[in-house]
Amino acid sequence: MSRAAYVDGQYLPHRSAAVHIEDRGYQFADGVYEVIAVVGGCLLDEEPHLKRLARSLAELRIPAPMPNAALRIVMREVIRRNGVRDGVVYVQITWGVSPRDHVFPEAARPVLVVTSRHKRPADPRMAADGVAVITIPDLRWQRCDIKSVALLPNVLGKQQARESGAFEAWQVDRDGMVSEGTSTNAWIVTSDATVVTRQADSAILNGVTHLAVLDIVRREGYRFVERPFSVAEAKSAREAFLTSTVVDLLPVVTVDGIAVGNGLPGALSRKLRECYLTHAANTT
Amino acid sequence: MSRAAYVDGQYLPHRSAAVHIEDRGYQFADGVYEVIAVVGGCLLDEEPHLKRLARSLAELRIPAPMPNAALRIVMREVIRRNGVRDGVVYVQITWGVSPRDHVFPEAARPVLVVTSRHKRPADPRMAADGVAVITIPDLRWQRCDIKSVALLPNVLGKQQARESGAFEAWQVDRDGMVSEGTSTNAWIVTSDATVVTRQADSAILNGVTHLAVLDIVRREGYRFVERPFSVAEAKSAREAFLTSTVVDLLPVVTVDGIAVGNGLPGALSRKLRECYLTHAANTT
Repeated sequence: MSRAAYVDGQYLPHRSAAVHIEDRGYQFADGVYEVIAVVGGCLLDEEPHLKRLARSLAELRIPAPMPNAALRIVMREVIRRNGVRDGVVYVQITWGVSPRDHVFPEAARPVLVVTSRHKRPADPRMAADGVAVITIPDLRWQRCDIKSVALLPNVLGKQQARESGAFEAWQVDRDGMVSEGTSTNAWIVTSDATVVTRQADSAILNGVTHLAVLDIVRREGYRFVERPFSVAEAKSAREAFLTSTVVDLLPVVTVDGIAVGNGLPGALSRKLRECYLTHAANTT
Repeated sequence: MSRAAYVDGQYLPHRSAAVHIEDRGYQFADGVYEVIAVVGGCLLDEEPHLKRLARSLAELRIPAPMPNAALRIVMREVIRRNGVRDGVVYVQITWGVSPRDHVFPEAARPVLVVTSRHKRPADPRMAADGVAVITIPDLRWQRCDIKSVALLPNVLGKQQARESGAFEAWQVDRDGMVSEGTSTNAWIVTSDATVVTRQADSAILNGVTHLAVLDIVRREGYRFVERPFSVAEAKSAREAFLTSTVVDLLPVVTVDGIAVGNGLPGALSRKLRECYLTHAANTT
């Protein structure tokens, strides 16, 4: 079956799905996106994703291309046409097509693109053995709370991680505090069993999985605090882990080659991962 | 005549010129660009533009899609097909089409897009009367020396300028020093007639017009120094001006509503503008 994509009002074969060369997403990164997990054919945490999408659009003053009710239908139709039961749906909205000029276009209308793909078979060792992270300077702009497609620094950071043999790079702000990974949020568990993750400020993208795991932490009654943590704290933490829509929750076992705790996935990380997978399964 | 664009090996009618929705330029801002002035059918300062393009590509490790000799031919063919004698040619190169993943693609090949347009009739009052600038915090990432399409902060800054009734926004770093405009470089002339502009560090895009005007300043024997200047210095300067490929050199007569000098275009600014226009005219 040929993969289908929704592009600006039409369902197209994926291979020929295209946008105009003067789409502002292409020329200015003037667009936003969401990646929503599909679990058993259902959209996981659809509400917070749509809420964040609306916020990102408002920050860039991009009009919503259609009401949420219609967007829900388009996402489901894309999933249906692609036969995706477990995977992700990708939604991108840009300021549309306009002769190249930095200022907001007066005559443009936003362009919506929706694609989906099957879940990539995750290496089961990542969850079982944990992953490595490196730390790098956070070079990004100061509005990382907007989920924009201006992802070039994230691309460079992720590439640096992979070339270092690590799964992710934790970006470190000018004060020496970890902001987040290049496509994941960062967490530690301190020696007194307190879960620590950065509060949702303009230095991080407030992940939907981040929010879901915070809810679980609260509900299960673990001690937690939302604050920045330093690289030194991460290296001497009892546990560490990372979260995102695409990877769920993965234990972090080394930071810059230094073992976190005993160098194995922590008990609390494993417990939270189980709770999160249960939450995801319950969406169906 | 239908406008023509070059897209990934083909000359296409501009209205139907498109790139794939999984082009990394669209999804990650993983691409670079140049805007080169066309004067009397000739490309102005083509060499430094191509040199900077090569540097930007190398920083993102994007392979050149074709040798410079071929790119020169494509640019000229696009200009010819569009009948542009005075205008600009726009060149964009991205990391190409690949299933969405932050890390550099292994199988992709870069995609080249070339367009051109006629010079927009400039409001002659801008050069005669000078323009207003406002100052805003510089929110951008820390590698502004790479001419990437991750221009969202520049878009937001330019929009803020326009809504303030100003032509441009000068971005101010955390130390209170002006980095540059959102699409132009920033200059002042101090009370002792020294021309001041920021050195080419990672906080600014080293403009080709910036370099050309610096050459003129040197050649004409004016005092100059390349260093950052503060907002206070700009407001108390004798003159101020800005430069870019698209606007050439424009006098700045107010900064945040404060008159620079006597609030009229400065003598040195006017002289440098004349010299630059002569330099441009001599390219033909």
